[in-house]
Amino acid sequence: MGRSRLATAARIHVQNTAPGRTDFVPLRPAGAVYLGNFRAPALETVRLGIVGLGERCGVLLEQLKTIPHAEVVGLCDLSLPALQAAAQECPPELSGALHLFSGPQGYERMLEEAHPDAVLICTTWATHASMAVAAMEHGAHALVEVPLGLTLQELWQVVDTAERTQRHCMMMENCCYGRDELMFLNMVRQGFIGDLLHGEAAYIHDLRERQLNAETDWHLAHLATRNGNLYPTHGLGPLAQYMNLARTDDTFDRIVSLSSPALGRAAYAEKNLPPDHPWNQVEFKCGDINTSIIKTRLGRTILVQWDETSPRPYNRRNLIQGTEGTLAGFPTRIAGAGLNDGSEWVVGDDALEPLRERFEHPLWRRLGEAAAEADSRGGMNYILLARIVECLHRGEPLDQNVYEGALWSAVAPLSEKSVREGGLPQGFPDFTRGDWQSTPPLGIVE
Amino acid sequence: MGRSRLATAARIHVQNTAPGRTDFVPLRPAGAVYLGNFRAPALETVRLGIVGLGERCGVLLEQLKTIPHAEVVGLCDLSLPALQAAAQECPPELSGALHLFSGPQGYERMLEEAHPDAVLICTTWATHASMAVAAMEHGAHALVEVPLGLTLQELWQVVDTAERTQRHCMMMENCCYGRDELMFLNMVRQGFIGDLLHGEAAYIHDLRERQLNAETDWHLAHLATRNGNLYPTHGLGPLAQYMNLARTDDTFDRIVSLSSPALGRAAYAEKNLPPDHPWNQVEFKCGDINTSIIKTRLGRTILVQWDETSPRPYNRRNLIQGTEGTLAGFPTRIAGAGLNDGSEWVVGDDALEPLRERFEHPLWRRLGEAAAEADSRGGMNYILLARIVECLHRGEPLDQNVYEGALWSAVAPLSEKSVREGGLPQGFPDFTRGDWQSTPPLGIVE
Repeated sequence: MGRSRLATAARIHVQNTAPGRTDFVPLRPAGAVYLGNFRAPALETVRLGIVGLGERCGVLLEQLKTIPHAEVVGLCDLSLPALQAAAQECPPELSGALHLFSGPQGYERMLEEAHPDAVLICTTWATHASMAVAAMEHGAHALVEVPLGLTLQELWQVVDTAERTQRHCMMMENCCYGRDELMFLNMVRQGFIGDLLHGEAAYIHDLRERQLNAETDWHLAHLATRNGNLYPTHGLGPLAQYMNLARTDDTFDRIVSLSSPALGRAAYAEKNLPPDHPWNQVEFKCGDINTSIIKTRLGRTILVQWDETSPRPYNRRNLIQGTEGTLAGFPTRIAGAGLNDGSEWVVGDDALEPLRERFEHPLWRRLGEAAAEADSRGGMNYILLARIVECLHRGEPLDQNVYEGALWSAVAPLSEKSVREGGLPQGFPDFTRGDWQSTPPLGIVE
Repeated sequence: MGRSRLATAARIHVQNTAPGRTDFVPLRPAGAVYLGNFRAPALETVRLGIVGLGERCGVLLEQLKTIPHAEVVGLCDLSLPALQAAAQECPPELSGALHLFSGPQGYERMLEEAHPDAVLICTTWATHASMAVAAMEHGAHALVEVPLGLTLQELWQVVDTAERTQRHCMMMENCCYGRDELMFLNMVRQGFIGDLLHGEAAYIHDLRERQLNAETDWHLAHLATRNGNLYPTHGLGPLAQYMNLARTDDTFDRIVSLSSPALGRAAYAEKNLPPDHPWNQVEFKCGDINTSIIKTRLGRTILVQWDETSPRPYNRRNLIQGTEGTLAGFPTRIAGAGLNDGSEWVVGDDALEPLRERFEHPLWRRLGEAAAEADSRGGMNYILLARIVECLHRGEPLDQNVYEGALWSAVAPLSEKSVREGGLPQGFPDFTRGDWQSTPPLGIVE
């Protein structure tokens, strides 16, 4: 597996750092250990606790059924009825010694009494970081839905706790396991598009209707008080892997961010909801679409967009551009890269099939069939969980380390600050404290 | 023709201006007149001079043949052979009293001796502003290929000269006359996509091979000494018209800009050109792809990209997003806007045909057939010139005023400054000196 040739090319000048850069980072405390390529002791069976029994948990449970070496030992939710319903859904082969924990103290009790090896945290955004910290303090690995935390302070606390307790803390960015994303990673690693220059990531997904149901109405508080890219990692995670960000070659330097006005939700509410509905009572602060640009240490640029409000079709962009070609998603398409002169897209199933045969990621060759069977949403969730359980079972590094989760999640608070300051560049903290240069790039896992 | 409802909506808060804003503007000198909706005396015949007989001039001459009330009275170029060749191409019906001017003093002599009513300036970028100024000083209207000028100082000089001499100075942004662009303008004006929130513009066009020929090798000096978005107006002009920027509703506030590394041309040269070729001798400074975000006074955002170097298919993006729908180009597609719930694109000739019937711009209904016949490049160049000559003939305002040319062109030097300063926001100068609020939006011209 080759490193990007760009990283060693002498003609790239590292740019001056941004005015807002945070270069001061407290020393790593005594006893804490850098976890860039961390391996925990192998586990014969991975005994899982799960907290937050919403829709996302249902998706994960659906996958876990057929994944070897996984067992669910605890389920936890504030609501007892939700808990009992989930327990009934939990198949017997998964739940040999299943315990249920409800109420405000439920999570703490699950950690103390069920002693899970790892906890899947599927709760609302605001509790991700503190629950990850509590899991690790109790000796469990933390497997966290996106984002890993909401503020830089939270993200540092997660990183510091992981380093002190020497537990895994992985933000489960499932889109890194998409079939196209993994195929692009494979193509990029083989030098198919030359030196990487630029990427484009997005989460454009009109969720207005979906966020009106009771389970997800907690979004409202975020949209009424924050303004930036609140959900950056689905598009960004795969690009960061293509570019080996925070892994030897390159890392995040700074971000600029601007939001549009916030009009779409109020307009929707005025048209579709009664006057006393919360959406008609609140003033939405978060711009309907946020557009940000990230600059890396090697000077590469990454466009990152977020919009959950506008009538615009679903899109994660997934575009990676190199000196020899461009790969893009939504729809999947390729230009240059020896296929043509770059002036047209190679697009459509027939045209792409030979490339799939040539570049399909080994993980998809190995697990694709099981994924298709288990995962009604395309397979990425199955492969995500299968890889996590497999790595914990074997005592191998997870595919995403705690620093990547922190860096990808940091885009939200940094974009908020940039928006607040009229677009001023914000420097990324180096959660690795300079050690990213010693972390090997993610391999093309067989 | 309606104004955007956004402009009068109380719930938009005008954002704080950027740290780099240039709020100090010298007072308009005595005798100078604001030209936002300027009409010059009607001309029975529009007697044109043309300077710079390159490829672009050929395109314009091709159109002029069939445009009523146009006459070419002078042709000017540094090169005598180019001049003689162009004169032979110039059809007799256009050139009743044609004079030729060559050499370094040719332009000045053409202005003095041929006394054109208006001059078409098709020379290299670096001479646009000074030639426009000279034209106006000699009493001729200036019709300038993009960009209008390269620095803020040049752009101010153009604006001040136009106001003092009371001559038109129009940057001929031909893409504003594209069939889809004019149709989108028509749709936006009719409120088809609601309040406008966000736009996306680009000029992505791999011109490496084309810029190797002798006529256009002057690009090299720009790419070796500048870094930013050097060619922003093809995508941006139409968006500025959709949003009524600098016309009553809204205007440019600030820009942030970041460039990728500059690798593509050196890689191309190393592979395809001899070691002593200039491309193998120079160090390219200009990043292969520049990504910028513009914020308007009403808080709308505009993504602007430029890339003439990478293997990526031609794209001007042409995306305009409102509360009720999204219109986009390359390929032409529409979401929401009462056609569907926004989750899918309406795309393809069959699906779009009814919309073309409903929203085709009146200019295309009137001139489309003649345009298709005269203009081998799709028709926009024909309609551009036909409208210019028609307006000058009738003594009506041109469709693009001098301030729009200056503002759109200002993206280049402001992006260069932002790139130099690591992404710092740069405020747009207000070339209208506050008068943009008195300039009516561009109408849907019949």
